[in-house]
Amino acid sequence: MSKILIFGHQNPDTDAIGAAIAFAELQRELGKDAEAVALGEPSEETQYALDYFKTAAPRVVETVANETDSVMLVDHNEFQQSVADIADVTVLSVVDHHRIANFETANPLYYRAEPVGCTSTIIYKMYKENHVEIPQAVAGMMLSAIVSDTLLFKSPTCTDEDVQAAKALAEIAGVDVEVYGLEMLKAGTKLSDKSVETLLDLDAKSFPMADKNVRIAQINTVDLAEVFARQAELEAAMAKANSENGYDLFLLVVTNILDSDSELLVVGDPKANVEKAFAVTLDNNRAFLQGVVSRKKQVVPQLTESFN
Amino acid sequence: MSKILIFGHQNPDTDAIGAAIAFAELQRELGKDAEAVALGEPSEETQYALDYFKTAAPRVVETVANETDSVMLVDHNEFQQSVADIADVTVLSVVDHHRIANFETANPLYYRAEPVGCTSTIIYKMYKENHVEIPQAVAGMMLSAIVSDTLLFKSPTCTDEDVQAAKALAEIAGVDVEVYGLEMLKAGTKLSDKSVETLLDLDAKSFPMADKNVRIAQINTVDLAEVFARQAELEAAMAKANSENGYDLFLLVVTNILDSDSELLVVGDPKANVEKAFAVTLDNNRAFLQGVVSRKKQVVPQLTESFN
Repeated sequence: MSKILIFGHQNPDTDAIGAAIAFAELQRELGKDAEAVALGEPSEETQYALDYFKTAAPRVVETVANETDSVMLVDHNEFQQSVADIADVTVLSVVDHHRIANFETANPLYYRAEPVGCTSTIIYKMYKENHVEIPQAVAGMMLSAIVSDTLLFKSPTCTDEDVQAAKALAEIAGVDVEVYGLEMLKAGTKLSDKSVETLLDLDAKSFPMADKNVRIAQINTVDLAEVFARQAELEAAMAKANSENGYDLFLLVVTNILDSDSELLVVGDPKANVEKAFAVTLDNNRAFLQGVVSRKKQVVPQLTESFN
Repeated sequence: MSKILIFGHQNPDTDAIGAAIAFAELQRELGKDAEAVALGEPSEETQYALDYFKTAAPRVVETVANETDSVMLVDHNEFQQSVADIADVTVLSVVDHHRIANFETANPLYYRAEPVGCTSTIIYKMYKENHVEIPQAVAGMMLSAIVSDTLLFKSPTCTDEDVQAAKALAEIAGVDVEVYGLEMLKAGTKLSDKSVETLLDLDAKSFPMADKNVRIAQINTVDLAEVFARQAELEAAMAKANSENGYDLFLLVVTNILDSDSELLVVGDPKANVEKAFAVTLDNNRAFLQGVVSRKKQVVPQLTESFN
């Protein structure tokens, strides 16, 4: 059998990359020939973690069927968020913490999903269940993933299991969670030197809702005003992305990681569903979302519901 | 929250019922208000196990949304094999050993699938991971499920994990695996007093393949000739089932559990796909399938492939 490729979703965040690294290491310890790859370059936040723990970024791949017949997915399952030729290979295993949709296999497989804040928390449990020791750098990447996904435990997606896993991993990694975590999150908020196209692509996912194709991007910042100073430029890029990629509706969720609130920017239609979903009135295509930091728990379900 | 209902697939086999009983017991031990129910009456094989281990058959339900808003599935995931109103409730958890298809949720959930021979083998591991003791009768039902799904370890779906789990469960249950197992399997082969309609419904599942609706039923026997003495009657009932339920193709797999072979009976179209799938020529709508005992591993993938 050819080498098993293991990867997270497109536009990889720190969990997509950290979980792939950690799960590939676990699979190798269990005797499999496995390599972590990525469906995109690491973000600055992820690069901060990789540098800190002296870990090489996974090789970026566009397709996989040209080099393997079997893959394992982490941190996603929906085919539209996966590699372009996912339907041409066998999915041996999935580890994820999202809803299941638009996913199917011809054969039985390993699938491990739990409704926790981060895929790396589940992988931490799998290391323990298999009695495999976690190397320091791998522990650091898994810790970084948990900090990233839970916004340092402030997201409503964060569970007690995430907090406990992060504490144990911080000990192995030899860092202070709060100090390291805030530095890592801040490293991901250096936005001023990035093009609006890059900002919109940092952490963006597509979701079919009713008969519409909805794109939802999220940016973390410590300064909302800095981002919205470029509102006109952002809106133009969102409109262009809509027409080029067939999105009907583009939501940009700009999250202030210090205050744990978000400001929403919306381009496309139907905007009425957005207003209904969050019980807000868009003003200048914007709305303030008090206490909203989680796309998965505070944006996608509400918007899905408003389309049904 | 209302009581969580836990159930296996329609036309329940011993794993569908045994795994539901075992997983409900585990959930109760973990503090959940859970009840095992079933989407049909137990087969004679399952009833033999229930009687032997002095366990009540789970209550049979037709729908669930009338009494709960949340369910857990065992031994299946495809909605067409589940309760009729599955789309109206929240699936909190799935434990299964089949392919994933026609399954989706709005929210993150627990999903535990492994490519082993029996769902009860996975549930046995979950008891151990959670350090919960398995009561004798529950161990007996889980053992019965493993014996049933693996045809006493002879099926190609059987893994070393199934064998190990069965040995450990037999010790808790206080029975000899081989002696108890063969008696239980034989209890499921008293076919002569059953109507052909009952035979066709004992262990039957529907599978969408390309644009066709394929029904595949399986019967275990120790005497192929006894079953095929009623061939004309079986064919008439299969043709009636096709027209009444919109099946295009009906396969009946009659498995000799002593010899580990099967004889196939086919009604409907396209028959050419069946011949291609198993490299046989149907004669009098029948074909002998040497060494075939597993619908999941030796029938469904081959037939699916021939449709693609």
